Amino acid sequence: MISTADVELAAGRIRGRVRRTPVLADDGVWFKLEQLQHTGSFKARGAFNRIIAAGELSAAGVVAASGGNAGLAVTHAAREFGVAARVYVPANAPAVKVAKLRALGAAVELVGDKYADAYDAAVKHAADSGALFCHAYDQPEICAGQGTIGLELLDQVDGLDTILVAVGGGGLLAGIAAAVEGRARVVGVEPRTAPTLNAALAAGEPVPVEVSGVAADSLGASRLGDIAFAVATRTGVGSVLVDDAAILDARAALWDRYRLAVEPGGATAFAALRTGAYRPAPGERVAVLLCGANTDPATLTSPPAAPPAARTPR
Amino acid sequence: MISTADVELAAGRIRGRVRRTPVLADDGVWFKLEQLQHTGSFKARGAFNRIIAAGELSAAGVVAASGGNAGLAVTHAAREFGVAARVYVPANAPAVKVAKLRALGAAVELVGDKYADAYDAAVKHAADSGALFCHAYDQPEICAGQGTIGLELLDQVDGLDTILVAVGGGGLLAGIAAAVEGRARVVGVEPRTAPTLNAALAAGEPVPVEVSGVAADSLGASRLGDIAFAVATRTGVGSVLVDDAAILDARAALWDRYRLAVEPGGATAFAALRTGAYRPAPGERVAVLLCGANTDPATLTSPPAAPPAARTPR
Repeated sequence: MISTADVELAAGRIRGRVRRTPVLADDGVWFKLEQLQHTGSFKARGAFNRIIAAGELSAAGVVAASGGNAGLAVTHAAREFGVAARVYVPANAPAVKVAKLRALGAAVELVGDKYADAYDAAVKHAADSGALFCHAYDQPEICAGQGTIGLELLDQVDGLDTILVAVGGGGLLAGIAAAVEGRARVVGVEPRTAPTLNAALAAGEPVPVEVSGVAADSLGASRLGDIAFAVATRTGVGSVLVDDAAILDARAALWDRYRLAVEPGGATAFAALRTGAYRPAPGERVAVLLCGANTDPATLTSPPAAPPAARTPR
Repeated sequence: MISTADVELAAGRIRGRVRRTPVLADDGVWFKLEQLQHTGSFKARGAFNRIIAAGELSAAGVVAASGGNAGLAVTHAAREFGVAARVYVPANAPAVKVAKLRALGAAVELVGDKYADAYDAAVKHAADSGALFCHAYDQPEICAGQGTIGLELLDQVDGLDTILVAVGGGGLLAGIAAAVEGRARVVGVEPRTAPTLNAALAAGEPVPVEVSGVAADSLGASRLGDIAFAVATRTGVGSVLVDDAAILDARAALWDRYRLAVEPGGATAFAALRTGAYRPAPGERVAVLLCGANTDPATLTSPPAAPPAARTPR
């Protein structure tokens, strides 16, 4: 569980390490351009907070399990402090992602054939070596770091009512909901093909879900984090679902109308507005969080006709 | 000639019609994200100011000569007021640009084989029909409209010292230099392959220059505008040149480091910082204007190996 105070502490820790990303106001919507963050997603905030909060690190440095945004962010933050980063990914991870991690300086370990294998190996490495394990979403410092976006939004948007946030494992949702608790409403937006929050709220606890679809590479956690569930239920976040086609449409619209390049997961929150899955009341001031842009820009104008059906491990 | 007061008047006219584009601060640089403007470039500001300043329009509406950003912006602004837009382009203009103009609602006329032919036809049409001619850069209302970016920057960047601005015909430069006169320095940045400002300052008057290179589609005016020359010399703008390779490098860096997608002309001002063509003094607060993103995003990660050598008409 985390609170507003945890997020405020995080904001002090990571100041100067992360970008205060700007907001584009248009047509009654405030877009928070967090895809402009270091390594192309919000994940840098949590990674810095986790590493700084840990204080002096052993020579083993930090370790993560992620072929995606979390791995890039942890590697970047580690490099900024001159410590080693080891990242475990499944052996079937796309070569381009592995190359990107290595280019940033990570020691990449290919283990097993699914995300759980990489995760288990990362946890074991942390226990054996003393390396600091950085979870992709379910650690208090990770969530609190992501939540600093919420504090910025309160400062950047006068009279902010509502923040639409994409949800995978829920670290971003948890942090932002804690940050703005009592001051603004938070609504989690998920692909129908990866509904961890929606399923957890329905079941009364985090439950495993099948994940697939166009945003699975960034939102494809198979279960909501415990911290996210606790904060979501305490603060009363909303939950809406959107189709994969709506995600691709929102992504295309962000490029066509604003020249903003985002990945499918980064466009998911906007899809809720475009489709009417979330309908603001008259005068309601809504922020849409664009959270990632680790994407092939060639697909902005020619999206893939057939989205991948199989789950891509995060 | 235009003054700060003209720009302030323009700002009042176009308020609510254009986006107040945000600023991303990083590493001691302030990036003004004007590529997020309506139709993907700063040109919407001048187009709106020109049309609003003209008051009631005849049924002939507005006319422009441009296959690029100016044509898109004039068409967009005309549509917002429900008036007709006619755009003259050379017959060899890329089909994709013509299609884009038509999709926005322009009546596109293909005339001759060079920009001057389209320009002459547009001027003649204006004289014959009573349509309002919107120049791509050399009219007071056009320049003043673009200059509203300068007023925003003064408000957005505390203690702003210097603004780096790409130069084609110089409408943007003129407007911004007038806007911030006496309050901040303006430096015009041009491709060596399209040096209208540099050549004009050297000659003591606007002179024709040969234009080519990677940014010619947006910066390829063949002569600096008279308003730009007058304002540039009155306010003492600086002038630096950059190579085409530096422009492509700056464009790639904007994507790699910030996930900002811009066209080559939009990256030209940043190239001056990257290469050291402009070297800020210690503590100098520099804004870099990113001015356009009408580009194929596929080329962000795989730039064309051989830039086009021939001049592309604007």
